[in-house]
Amino acid sequence: MKINGKQCRTICPDPSDKSKVHIIDQRQLPHEYTIETLTNLKQTCVAIKDMHVRGAGLIGATAGFGMHLAALQAPETGFMEYMEKAGEQLSSTRPTASNLNWAVRRQLQEVSKSNTLASMQQSVFATACAIADEDAEYCRQIGIHGLEIIRAISKKKKGKPVNILTHCNAGWLAFVDYGSATAPIYAARDAGIAVHVWVDETRPWNQGAKLTAWELQQEKIDNTLIVDNAGGHLMQHGMVDMVIVGTDRTTHTGDVANKIGTYLKALAARDNGIPFYVALPSTTFDWNLDNGMEIPIEQREGEEITTITGKDSDNEIRTVQLTAKDTKAANYSFDITPARLISGLITERGITEADEKAIHRLFPEGGH
Amino acid sequence: MKINGKQCRTICPDPSDKSKVHIIDQRQLPHEYTIETLTNLKQTCVAIKDMHVRGAGLIGATAGFGMHLAALQAPETGFMEYMEKAGEQLSSTRPTASNLNWAVRRQLQEVSKSNTLASMQQSVFATACAIADEDAEYCRQIGIHGLEIIRAISKKKKGKPVNILTHCNAGWLAFVDYGSATAPIYAARDAGIAVHVWVDETRPWNQGAKLTAWELQQEKIDNTLIVDNAGGHLMQHGMVDMVIVGTDRTTHTGDVANKIGTYLKALAARDNGIPFYVALPSTTFDWNLDNGMEIPIEQREGEEITTITGKDSDNEIRTVQLTAKDTKAANYSFDITPARLISGLITERGITEADEKAIHRLFPEGGH
Repeated sequence: MKINGKQCRTICPDPSDKSKVHIIDQRQLPHEYTIETLTNLKQTCVAIKDMHVRGAGLIGATAGFGMHLAALQAPETGFMEYMEKAGEQLSSTRPTASNLNWAVRRQLQEVSKSNTLASMQQSVFATACAIADEDAEYCRQIGIHGLEIIRAISKKKKGKPVNILTHCNAGWLAFVDYGSATAPIYAARDAGIAVHVWVDETRPWNQGAKLTAWELQQEKIDNTLIVDNAGGHLMQHGMVDMVIVGTDRTTHTGDVANKIGTYLKALAARDNGIPFYVALPSTTFDWNLDNGMEIPIEQREGEEITTITGKDSDNEIRTVQLTAKDTKAANYSFDITPARLISGLITERGITEADEKAIHRLFPEGGH
Repeated sequence: MKINGKQCRTICPDPSDKSKVHIIDQRQLPHEYTIETLTNLKQTCVAIKDMHVRGAGLIGATAGFGMHLAALQAPETGFMEYMEKAGEQLSSTRPTASNLNWAVRRQLQEVSKSNTLASMQQSVFATACAIADEDAEYCRQIGIHGLEIIRAISKKKKGKPVNILTHCNAGWLAFVDYGSATAPIYAARDAGIAVHVWVDETRPWNQGAKLTAWELQQEKIDNTLIVDNAGGHLMQHGMVDMVIVGTDRTTHTGDVANKIGTYLKALAARDNGIPFYVALPSTTFDWNLDNGMEIPIEQREGEEITTITGKDSDNEIRTVQLTAKDTKAANYSFDITPARLISGLITERGITEADEKAIHRLFPEGGH
């Protein structure tokens, strides 16, 4: 993806010094484009927990590199115990995210095949790079499959812009490259199909307002920011042709945990006969959970709701209080969209129904 | 209602000088409690359009007093023409609001029965006061009827707190006193029933975060602020017993225009079997529209989404930019909740189904 016209990824090891991993500090966007350098496990945990990086794929990739930074400091004797503890610390930073556990488990599984310190460290680095590369490639494939849905709508509309609503940021910034929900949009643009994106601002963290709108502007994709409340109205008035969102964890039965408010958009799409798609690399599947309602839902500080940060007229970044000081707020980060409301899952292997049998047909290695 | 323990109304003429009408400048809440004094029609139009005052009943009452201030400056010859023009100016300030037109029409109808300048001015003042008094009384009656719904839920829950979700501010601040959606809540509190209110922050203007949370705190009603995205999650988890919202215009067939996002909550309530009530004085009915989708939906400036105002750490009120500078935003203020999603309408005459026949049975003077 491009920032100021330059090709970038959201995470990458320093080309000349493997002990440094560069990320974009997404808390500063869109006001400032800041590169942060991670050099140890603790910094990596903070970066995930405090949302310097966020989004299903990027969290997974960051956990992969977090394991690599841990491995550089691990002792030869007790290496695996050290790495397991590091993995636990990484996994506990964001309880809903599936890719986090997946990346940690993959690292532990791969490294167990090596036995010298050097080879173990080399293995962890190689796996971290592989996770990042695969994430980008899976998203590219999601784009190829999702493009066909957009192309079909564009044909029906005789080339008039296809209006796509998205919630949160399941964009390039949430992955290593391309994004999940945005990959089909970028692919459509590349195929010369006119698209327009309705960007939900996505309270309370405003991933849509801060990240998706900015990301789409960088890519010169026509977009309009709306409040999260507006989607139903737009759908009632025929102003949305399809919805595409990402997911932080999807059960093997097709229930989707995604940013709080996704469920409301799925209900509105169903009520108005609008297709509702979820885009995900298979790394986001949870093969063990049968029921989405069992997915742990992260609760964050109420302060994320009662205060907000922006740029004032003097170009200073400032935090302001939006409510009376003693206002109590509850901050649930995700909700569950049941499989029955989902038109399809767009994966790197193709589009499948949000249904246990169909999902396992496409991913037989998921077991059961 | 009480502010800092003192009984107040949201609008009142100065007791010793009828040419002054006092309002609360609600834009400053909850940070500052500022009384503004209106002395002419132009100021009144600005106060409604720029949302110094807002909410169905209060807009109606303010329009009533706006006509009074206009009458004080009207010439004896051509009085009615002058007043009709004043009415047009007031009606055009907020296109979705029903009470606005209703108050203007009532003023014009009443004043046409008088003929000297003094008697016409006296009539307009008396009507303005009557509109305000009736608004308060209607809301009090809404409280009495709505209380029974809350009491029944409380009984089922064996006295455990009844969790009520509300959207926007249909509170005391939106009317002259009591509020519509809040009146049953205040009545329940007075009847010793334990209640807890989930307050939707209500983007983009944050009526929930700024006004409802503050109003409930002043009245010592237990409440928790949530983002608009959260209601579906809470309902999925049995954490909401009922929804009560207000309305800016309700067709005589039961379709409800209310703050953008209301429709999404109604869908979630239906999906989870939770009762969804709309509270309204009958002045909010539109007796001429058969279909809610014909109600004009106000569009406001995108800036209400891309910037926000709050109090910084130095206690200064500041506006900050939330997005990249060139972000395009669309700002639709209301949506339509179709009658089929509504459990009942709580009016000053009792609770009715959101259905043409039932509504006309309760309000036969509505015609048809």
